[in-house]
Amino acid sequence: MTALDPVRLAAELIACPSVTPEEGGAQQLLAQWLSAQGFAVERFAAGAAPHGPVPNLIAVRHQGDGPHFAFAGHSDVVPPGEGWTDPPFAATRRGDLLYGRGAVDMKGALAAFVAAADRVREHRGTISLLITGDEEGPAVHGTRAIMTRLAERGLRPDMILVGEPTSSSRLGDMMKIGRRGSINAWVRVPGTQGHVAYPHLADNPVARLVRILARLQTWEIDRGTDWFQPSNLEVTELVVGNPATNIIPGAAAARLNIRFNTLQSGADLAEAIRRIALEEAPRAEVEAMISGEAFLTAPGPLSALVADAVTAVTGLVPELSTSGGTSDARFLSALAPTVEFGLTNATMHKLDEAVAVADLHALTAIYAELLRRALA
Amino acid sequence: MTALDPVRLAAELIACPSVTPEEGGAQQLLAQWLSAQGFAVERFAAGAAPHGPVPNLIAVRHQGDGPHFAFAGHSDVVPPGEGWTDPPFAATRRGDLLYGRGAVDMKGALAAFVAAADRVREHRGTISLLITGDEEGPAVHGTRAIMTRLAERGLRPDMILVGEPTSSSRLGDMMKIGRRGSINAWVRVPGTQGHVAYPHLADNPVARLVRILARLQTWEIDRGTDWFQPSNLEVTELVVGNPATNIIPGAAAARLNIRFNTLQSGADLAEAIRRIALEEAPRAEVEAMISGEAFLTAPGPLSALVADAVTAVTGLVPELSTSGGTSDARFLSALAPTVEFGLTNATMHKLDEAVAVADLHALTAIYAELLRRALA
Ligand SMILES: [Zn+2]
Ligand SMILES: [Zn+2]
Repeated sequence: MTALDPVRLAAELIACPSVTPEEGGAQQLLAQWLSAQGFAVERFAAGAAPHGPVPNLIAVRHQGDGPHFAFAGHSDVVPPGEGWTDPPFAATRRGDLLYGRGAVDMKGALAAFVAAADRVREHRGTISLLITGDEEGPAVHGTRAIMTRLAERGLRPDMILVGEPTSSSRLGDMMKIGRRGSINAWVRVPGTQGHVAYPHLADNPVARLVRILARLQTWEIDRGTDWFQPSNLEVTELVVGNPATNIIPGAAAARLNIRFNTLQSGADLAEAIRRIALEEAPRAEVEAMISGEAFLTAPGPLSALVADAVTAVTGLVPELSTSGGTSDARFLSALAPTVEFGLTNATMHKLDEAVAVADLHALTAIYAELLRRALA
Repeated sequence: MTALDPVRLAAELIACPSVTPEEGGAQQLLAQWLSAQGFAVERFAAGAAPHGPVPNLIAVRHQGDGPHFAFAGHSDVVPPGEGWTDPPFAATRRGDLLYGRGAVDMKGALAAFVAAADRVREHRGTISLLITGDEEGPAVHGTRAIMTRLAERGLRPDMILVGEPTSSSRLGDMMKIGRRGSINAWVRVPGTQGHVAYPHLADNPVARLVRILARLQTWEIDRGTDWFQPSNLEVTELVVGNPATNIIPGAAAARLNIRFNTLQSGADLAEAIRRIALEEAPRAEVEAMISGEAFLTAPGPLSALVADAVTAVTGLVPELSTSGGTSDARFLSALAPTVEFGLTNATMHKLDEAVAVADLHALTAIYAELLRRALA
């Protein structure tokens, strides 16, 4: 029996047009490949409109006592957009690169893990794959539904590896041990409309909004932690909509985003924004939306295990990073220590997304090495 | 011969639908009435598209040596808008009020001055009327074209009365001896678009714009003068237009207005805005549009003459004010001392604009008294 080729698997997954929320055949392929190597595979649709149904997949290979190692990921991809050199779902190979939407985020990693699990048939304990079809979308009925299903079945991982593309310049140079949280907020300031020649008869909401924003953007939220950069606020939108040059408008609004570390909770930040807004504009309204809390798996056995496997294959010592956007690890870390390691992220979400063929082989070797060490 | 009735004249003028730039027959009526009482009337169209042609009228009654007293005003009105109780050009009289667009701004004053000139047929020197059809519009080919024409004809007023509605609660309680200038400016800040998770790779133009605006709106431009309140800045518009919550936008802009006194020039203010903007955002662009410079006719013989005539008729001592919006006095004051006195302004530019019939008679008496005193 020949070993599974991660390049062929990746190409077959890329060929499935699984733009969120479409499954596109990708989970069907995974189910087939995993069943063939002894995994019990459960596929289920979670939720209803507007954020569902979402196609999810849980695959478990239980081989007696021992730890439970879970690999988490997603089969969906972001829309390809216009302007690709090759069709985005054609999985075109040119030279050392395999092109296609999802090549690094994260069908290449799915392929590598499937191939790795195939190579490590002898293990104790449990290997599971937790694959959602809604990581790039609202993520309401994706990984969280999988966690509910795991609990219903009495399954609890001891360690979780998320296969997001965490490498920066070279495969193996970076892994994630945490992610910042993210909150968006609208600050809406009502005022009293009037003529610019009679400002005492008006209440300019723009003046109040500027004072609020000036305070928010000079606010030192924290100074960072050993593992996180300082929490950071960016104002991303301003809205007035007043065509008249001689009129003080009746309302003004701004939208902002904070990426925050584990010193903050989303609720704390929403409350702080509200307090500052009300001090400058007693009639202000703040609408906060928490996209995700920050998480950290402090450096320890799991990060060491992953780092050692990376070093064994690549010779690199991965940086333990907490930078970048959010991922489903923010949910999963409630279950067990969670780290993220995968391909290079230079082309993720971009036109002509591509993975190096050599990286697919190396990542397969890393994942296999990891399984051997975790479940020896 | 019966004296001209200012109420009838006002009603006839209101019935002319002279929304800028339409003449609507109003200047035709004025020409007819003034010719009949010995004025030499010249009507001319000034300028071409897009800000012309503008109908203008100059009427001169020269009766030998003596000062030249000019009355300046406009025959055009702002659009009536929807929702009037009576049709806006019907000149409906109900009780003591005459309703219609232009009743106080300023067809009532035109009627009163025509009636006053008719009552003061015996005078030395010169009475002129300088009437534009574009005061409420761009005002490019209105009063300024009249001033050019006066110069061509070798005419130079010694004193100018602008008939704008300057009274506040009661006819006679306020006159204007100056007006603030007005400047609008767009401040446009380019930035570098990027992802909120990687702010060091972006340059948030909103952050820079907020710093600029915070400085501008705490800027003490001046502390006012004996005759003017402090110059005042209002931010009237903010524009970003970024739908994506996780994207730092590529540009941000704000529009502001400054009403300024005689301590400033429009050019000085534009330069100061530009300097502050560039300090916070070296790539900022400032586009300034000066609507008018401030003017002041310091209290003196002309304001005393007008005030005395007002007091003689009404018993009130008018406040010498410089508040409110701009007027064509900003141009005329370059020729000669210029003050403004007219009807109450409570309903100007509003629905159901109306003038008290008694005020039309009283204003006629004031203007006549003024002519007698000025050209005795
Ligand atoms: Zn991903
Ligand atoms: Zn007017």
